[in-house]
Amino acid sequence: MVSLPKLRPIDPPSAAFLLAESKNQPMHVGGLQLFERPEDAGPDFVRELFEAATSNDDEVMPLFLKHPHRSIKTAGQLFWREDDQFDIEHHVRHNALPSPGRVRELLELCSRLHSTRLDWERPLWQAHLIEGLADGRVAMYTKIHHGLVDGISAMRLLQSTLSTDPDERGMAAPWTKRAIRRAKADTKGDVDAPMTEAAHTLAGLPGDALRTALGITAEAAGMPGALIKTLSKGARNETSTVSFHTPRTMFNRSITGARRFAAQDWPVERIRGVGKATGATINDVVLAMCGGAIRTYLLENDALPDSPLVAMVPVGLKAKESHLPSAEGGNAVGAVMARLGTDQADAGERLVAVQKSMKDGKDALQSLTPVQVLAMSAIGQAPAILGPALKMQGIIRSPYNLIISNVPGPRTTHYWNGAKLVGNYPLSIPINGMALNITCTSYDGSMGFGLTGCRRTVPHLQRLLTFLDAELAALEKAAGVS
Amino acid sequence: MVSLPKLRPIDPPSAAFLLAESKNQPMHVGGLQLFERPEDAGPDFVRELFEAATSNDDEVMPLFLKHPHRSIKTAGQLFWREDDQFDIEHHVRHNALPSPGRVRELLELCSRLHSTRLDWERPLWQAHLIEGLADGRVAMYTKIHHGLVDGISAMRLLQSTLSTDPDERGMAAPWTKRAIRRAKADTKGDVDAPMTEAAHTLAGLPGDALRTALGITAEAAGMPGALIKTLSKGARNETSTVSFHTPRTMFNRSITGARRFAAQDWPVERIRGVGKATGATINDVVLAMCGGAIRTYLLENDALPDSPLVAMVPVGLKAKESHLPSAEGGNAVGAVMARLGTDQADAGERLVAVQKSMKDGKDALQSLTPVQVLAMSAIGQAPAILGPALKMQGIIRSPYNLIISNVPGPRTTHYWNGAKLVGNYPLSIPINGMALNITCTSYDGSMGFGLTGCRRTVPHLQRLLTFLDAELAALEKAAGVS
Repeated sequence: MVSLPKLRPIDPPSAAFLLAESKNQPMHVGGLQLFERPEDAGPDFVRELFEAATSNDDEVMPLFLKHPHRSIKTAGQLFWREDDQFDIEHHVRHNALPSPGRVRELLELCSRLHSTRLDWERPLWQAHLIEGLADGRVAMYTKIHHGLVDGISAMRLLQSTLSTDPDERGMAAPWTKRAIRRAKADTKGDVDAPMTEAAHTLAGLPGDALRTALGITAEAAGMPGALIKTLSKGARNETSTVSFHTPRTMFNRSITGARRFAAQDWPVERIRGVGKATGATINDVVLAMCGGAIRTYLLENDALPDSPLVAMVPVGLKAKESHLPSAEGGNAVGAVMARLGTDQADAGERLVAVQKSMKDGKDALQSLTPVQVLAMSAIGQAPAILGPALKMQGIIRSPYNLIISNVPGPRTTHYWNGAKLVGNYPLSIPINGMALNITCTSYDGSMGFGLTGCRRTVPHLQRLLTFLDAELAALEKAAGVS
Repeated sequence: MVSLPKLRPIDPPSAAFLLAESKNQPMHVGGLQLFERPEDAGPDFVRELFEAATSNDDEVMPLFLKHPHRSIKTAGQLFWREDDQFDIEHHVRHNALPSPGRVRELLELCSRLHSTRLDWERPLWQAHLIEGLADGRVAMYTKIHHGLVDGISAMRLLQSTLSTDPDERGMAAPWTKRAIRRAKADTKGDVDAPMTEAAHTLAGLPGDALRTALGITAEAAGMPGALIKTLSKGARNETSTVSFHTPRTMFNRSITGARRFAAQDWPVERIRGVGKATGATINDVVLAMCGGAIRTYLLENDALPDSPLVAMVPVGLKAKESHLPSAEGGNAVGAVMARLGTDQADAGERLVAVQKSMKDGKDALQSLTPVQVLAMSAIGQAPAILGPALKMQGIIRSPYNLIISNVPGPRTTHYWNGAKLVGNYPLSIPINGMALNITCTSYDGSMGFGLTGCRRTVPHLQRLLTFLDAELAALEKAAGVS
């Protein structure tokens, strides 16, 4: 008798992310990491990394061995099935940039890699080692399906397998069991909580979907009743966490399958400086930077609406406040609707508007019941899934124009086989009706911004980087710290 | 009033190729061209080519500006629509190979580029300039949807825009109107008929699908009655052009979306040498090479069936013989089912079996009516479309195991802006139930083989190149010419 690969049911939020996928709406998240070559690296450093990473010496984690499966035998239901013909060279790839090998060529390659759908016949991930940057740095772009891992878990997973020791060599690739065992052993002396959590989460959920506290709340997608109640409550209260008074913008249209990605980082110290002088949080300043940059971008496209754009911003809640223990006893997450002050010409006033909007939102969040908080989070985590549900309820317009997330990362320098991690940028998921996503993450004193947009609906996306830079300078001037 | 882009109906065979497309079955053809750098090329030669090719100085041909469109307004019917936001940088791209920059890395990149579907929101083509080959050569990979152009027309289109003059510079990119005007002006003194024909065809069909005589016959896909009659006739006569006695092999299974491509060329003189000594045609020797290589491959995979594999082989018919004028007054094309002699251990006997099978097939083809010839051709051109039609008629198994085409190309050396074309390889379309395709084309004394397969269903596809090489040597030995 032939032994058939084991089938495991797919949990509802994972299945929802799989089913939300279409030609124009691939549902994978990504990450771009930049490394400096170690001093002892030879000319074939990247090829050697690639060959080590695709050798069969290390066992791949179960999470990275399963793929969705549906057949007559499963009555059309989706199951996870182990790939019995796993082909590591399909998943791990060696790339190069064309001349002149600037960051521009790197972002163009990432845009293209992020545009293609993952193949359901295979485990839902890819990792690309990229050589050819003129300055000698090495890049790694990774993509993982949202049905397998949420974006934050994916980034933490990658980080958790890195080392704080520049002299460590022989480190396994992040998708192997050995890397995870190493990360777990390493966490005792490590003060970076997110990494510890990721390692624990991985240990606890070896064969299933990997979700942080933020991701787990996506299960609330299965609670339309509670969600609609929360949204209705929001509709009655303008200062609530939910606002329906969003203008329709050029970002809120149908999307195509092609993506454009832009990324850059700024010193956290500069952002913190503006916050200290104005009483704003780092997150407020990040949102004001986004608001100002988007204002300039829309002005340039002759598409600025009169009323301010609204961003959905996931915020962490202390477990006590949220009355909700997360899977790891850590934080639960709520969503705040933040007005971005795009109607204000002055950078300082824009920051004030963002601050007030965020404070109101957080206050309102405190007054929600736990189930309502879960439902709120679900909006942010699963807009593509909730869209049809909202439409059925007669709520046709999205309650926000875009999602802006800011996820804290490790504060210390990390290494992979001696290569120093010098940049870390998230790539997210534009969806129909929401063509732009901004996700930020901090690392080692820098705040990395990752902007992912539909290539057609958000033309010249990279201009937003210039505008973000100008906006930080304007905020510094307004705060009197420049 | 806003002027809307003009809609044009899509002809039935083009629509059929569009509708046959799915996640696992992209319906585009491709070409890989290898160029030598001209002596006067600077270090930025490829970047300069890329920048010239993406500059807006040259108008893009209408064929390359339209995309399929379907909406409520068109009642769900497919139309061609001009792309009003045409973005040349989406279509023309600059790539590089990772170290060590061997042909292996080039084929791996082409495999990946050929695996992704073209975006229906945009005109259905891409061209990739590729640098980074260690020997300094430059490659161009192009892909075009089969609904727009058949594979042979696509290759001829590319060739027709090249020059026989190594000193010509300032040549436009092949997708521009200027290149086509140049090709037309150039044809008077050119003895390479295919190029002339392509230029004429392009001139005559500026806005519609581009099809050579071979492609035009795909319209027979709209004649199921005649087709089934032909197939039934074949079923009654074992020596006919149609054979149902095909073994089911590892190639005749469902496919996934990922592709693997392998290519290599051999001197036409060697192939002709075997033919002269044995009374076989060049095409017979090519088929015997394929048969021998496939036999070794199947043996290695422990998957060789007892009865010989059958290949569908498109053959040219003189207009008089076929009673059919083609669009250009040229040749019509029929399809012969050729037994590949995979049951024979001896290379010489294999060639004899192929020769006999091809002769029987061509004789049978002469006895068919014009409509039957058209129907035969349709099988070869549109297997993905005909599959369902055959199933409805109770004919479940395909009448052949794979398609092997051999398309004559130009015999003289060609150049693009001084870069000498030194290799030319076609990439074709594996379909469900037919995971391997072999297409050959001759150029300047070489016979280029392009093997395109489903990455999963045809593992280690590149081994077939080694086996083809061994088989040619074995045939030379058997023919006494080595």
